[in-house]
This record gives sequence, C-alpha cells and structure tokens, in this order.
Amino acid sequence: MTMLVVKCYSIILFFLIISVYVSSAKPSSNHKNIKAPCKRFVLYYHDILFNGTDAANATSAAAANATLLGNFSFGQLVVFDDPMTKDNHLLSPPVARAQGFYFYDMKSTYNAWFAYTLIFNSSEHRGTINIMGADMMMEKTRDLSVVGGTGDFFLTRGIATFTTDTLQGFYYFRLKMDIKLYECY
Amino acid sequence: MTMLVVKCYSIILFFLIISVYVSSAKPSSNHKNIKAPCKRFVLYYHDILFNGTDAANATSAAAANATLLGNFSFGQLVVFDDPMTKDNHLLSPPVARAQGFYFYDMKSTYNAWFAYTLIFNSSEHRGTINIMGADMMMEKTRDLSVVGGTGDFFLTRGIATFTTDTLQGFYYFRLKMDIKLYECY
Amino acid sequence: MTMLVVKCYSIILFFLIISVYVSSAKPSSNHKNIKAPCKRFVLYYHDILFNGTDAANATSAAAANATLLGNFSFGQLVVFDDPMTKDNHLLSPPVARAQGFYFYDMKSTYNAWFAYTLIFNSSEHRGTINIMGADMMMEKTRDLSVVGGTGDFFLTRGIATFTTDTLQGFYYFRLKMDIKLYECY
Repeated sequence: MTMLVVKCYSIILFFLIISVYVSSAKPSSNHKNIKAPCKRFVLYYHDILFNGTDAANATSAAAANATLLGNFSFGQLVVFDDPMTKDNHLLSPPVARAQGFYFYDMKSTYNAWFAYTLIFNSSEHRGTINIMGADMMMEKTRDLSVVGGTGDFFLTRGIATFTTDTLQGFYYFRLKMDIKLYECY
Repeated sequence: MTMLVVKCYSIILFFLIISVYVSSAKPSSNHKNIKAPCKRFVLYYHDILFNGTDAANATSAAAANATLLGNFSFGQLVVFDDPMTKDNHLLSPPVARAQGFYFYDMKSTYNAWFAYTLIFNSSEHRGTINIMGADMMMEKTRDLSVVGGTGDFFLTRGIATFTTDTLQGFYYFRLKMDIKLYECY
Repeated sequence: MTMLVVKCYSIILFFLIISVYVSSAKPSSNHKNIKAPCKRFVLYYHDILFNGTDAANATSAAAANATLLGNFSFGQLVVFDDPMTKDNHLLSPPVARAQGFYFYDMKSTYNAWFAYTLIFNSSEHRGTINIMGADMMMEKTRDLSVVGGTGDFFLTRGIATFTTDTLQGFYYFRLKMDIKLYECY
C-alpha cells in the first residue's frame, strides 16, 4: 500500500512538473503562432482633398505643401476627417469616421505614411481603433499596424491591409481597408 | 493493485488533459476580459500656444497654420513641450513633460488628434509613455490609446481619458488626463 | 482500497487546483517580468536633409519650417525616406528603409519626436516595424516604443534605443538604432 501511494505521488509529481512547465512556458514564450483574427471588417476610406473652393464636399486639406524634393509631393501633409463606408460608394451611409493625417514621403514615386483613428459611434460599434504605418502605394496591398483601441475595441491590436480602390486625379482617392484584429478583450 | 494503478493513471491523465487544455486555452484565446488597471494616475496637461511674443511662457507653437477649410482651424498643427502637473495649477511643479503634437481636423467644430510622449524623470518614475488618438473635443470625456512605454513603463498599454479642464481663448487650455495602464511588466 | 482511491483523488485534486491556479494566474497577471528580446538588431539611420539643391542625395525634407519659439528649430517638421544600414557607412547597402517624420520640440535645446516605419524587403526579412516616441537628443541613449509590425514582424512590440552616432551641421546626422523586440509571433 505504501509503495502504491509513493508510486501514485511520483506519477502525480511527474505530470505536475510537466503541466507547470507547459503552462508557464506559454505566457513567457517569445514565439507565438499567428492566430486567426478575432474580429474583421472591410471598410472603404474616401478622401476628397480640398481644392480651395469645394469646402462643402472636401474632407481633407493640405496642412503643409509639397517640398521641392522630387516630383511626387514629397512632404505634403494632409489632415483628414474622412467617411468610412461598407461598400465603395462615396454616398453610402458612413459607418465610421477616419480622423488623422498622411504625408507623401518618396522622391521617386507616390508613397505615403498614415496615422489615424477610426471612430465608431453607432448601435453596432462604439469606440476607436488607432492605426499607423507606411502606405507603399505602388504595392497591390500593404499592411499597417493597428496599435490600440478604446471602447468596444479596448486595447485591440492587429493589421490594416490597404488596397487602392480608385485614384481620381489629385482630389479623390478611395482605399479598401481590411481591418483584422488579433487581440480582442 | 494493478487495476488501482491503472485507475490512478487514467484519473491523472484525465485531469492532465483538462489542465493542459485550460492552460493552453488561455494565452491563445482571442477574447479576454477587461481587467482593472495595474497602474493609474491623473495628470493635468497645460498648453500655452506661442502668440509670437511670449516666448518665455509659451510651451507650444503652430508648425502649420490653419487651412481655409471651415472655421475651426482645420489643419493647424501644433508642436508642444508641455508641463504635466498633479493638480490643475499651471505653476505646480511639473511631474512629467508631454512632448508631441496635435492638429485640428474637423470643418464643423473644434476637434483634434494627438500623438505624444509623456516623459518622467523623477525619483518616483523614470521612463516614457507613448499615446495617440482622436480628441473629440465636443465629448465630455474621450479615450486615446497608450500604445507603448519605456523604462518604468516598459511595453505598457492602456487608455488615456481626456477631459477638458479649461479653455481660455486661443492661447491656453488645460486637459485632465486619466492614464490607466492595463499591461505592466 | 477505497481509502487509497479517495486519497489518490484528493492528492490529484490538490495538485490540480494548484496547477490551474498557477496557469490561470499567469495570463491574467498585471505584472510580468522583463524578458530577454526574442529578436534584436542594430541598424544605422542616415538622414540627409534637403538643402534646396541636392535632390539627388537628399533623403529628407522639411515640410514645415521652424517657428520663432526659441533658437532650436522648434516646430520644424521633417519627412524622411532614409536608408538603414548594418554598419555606420552611409554608402553600405541598405537593409531597410525608414519612412516617417520627426520634428523639433524644445525651445531650450535640440530635442525631437519621431514616428516612422522600418520597411524590410530582402531575402532575410520581409515586413514592417512601426516606431514612435521622444528622441531626447541630449541624452546619451533614449528609448522609443516599437508599437506594431507586419509580415515577419507580425504584431511585434519592443524598444528602439537611439544613440547619436554623428551630427554634421544641419544637413547630415546618423543614429544608431538598437531594436529589441520582446513579442514575436
């Protein structure tokens, strides 16, 4: 009997050590697998740059003009308050606003950098998502970072994948933003 | 006896499987509960915008002027190095500096967007906290994201809740910032 | 026999409770220990500010000029697309680009604030790392936050430690950036 109890103990101890090892290894691990998004939505971003006379329609304006470095608007900084829609129609009811800025930053081609907040204020979602990163416009798709969120999107993190949906001269462009959240609280 | 050992083994295995399942389910879970902050402090942010002549007192200056889009300073970009105090007195000893920028981004009302660093360099705290997000000035309170930190605030994340404490014309305003950190290392 | 089984059960339950407690305590803990980086690399950032005539060499340009607040370029905002090299030679093959902006933000000394993306596009690394924070130029080293990443650097977080490697007048400076990633997926 005593032998059996000892055996039983030692088995338990063995598994316990393994189990503690396994469980403690996880959170302190530096290498995690890529997971499926816990939330995902596709939205369209519409930017109508102020041309000096269309204040009623414009949703963005250049706070700093392009520099003379290259021919691709290097340094032009645009502040925006743009509507986000579920489909790619400019006049569809916005489901969010995108507030922030972008600037052009290459001398050899059009290329931009964005930092902005998606603001949701509807029965479906209430809260904000903060995003920043490079918009390498010449790539078919490019990934920016979702670095935080508030409200329904408390502390979220993830990836925002941009695709250029249309580019109409200097004053209107539309981006498809595929927002994938990997941390939802 | 052998039966008993087998039974004992199977019991252990059963609990082991559950235990491993439970422990592995946690870190890979996509849905976590909202926790209480691990650190929290309320600080007041004082912004004295340079009017062209008060260089001795001013703590911020407009790097880009307002555009002509609307009447609410759309596009005005202000760079700041502002004192943070524990109470709402401008002349209280600063416990941190806030360095960064904001700009106005709505054509129909005053509304801003912030990105900045809180810099602590005292016996109490040493390190930085990085914050970005929309400041919807018309809301009583609004949440921005704490997206990272260094030093005592290594890798922190959380929420910074803004309340307008006072607004005195164009050249002085004060925000109450309630900083709630949910990840402390 | 029955007694032994009961004993065995109670031992298992005891360890099980401990094991569940240990494993559940970890992820919900608000206080984690500082870990070693899961990835680390040192890169050199070269910034050649456009002087109005050297478009071929320049990698950055001032989008907003300095204000009149103080004598340290307060408010000057520079957009950059800078090469990152493994050693401190400007002409070494770049291993990444740094795209983003910085501005000066103190009236009593040179001090800056950065937000930018490191873009990797080689056989070694493909993806981006997003960084923001204060660059307290007068300190020997200063830490900024790595707030996100994409591609090979999916959702990464960490610290970017800046050291001024050289400062040559107004138009060239070089920073050593020691990038330490603490979350790798």
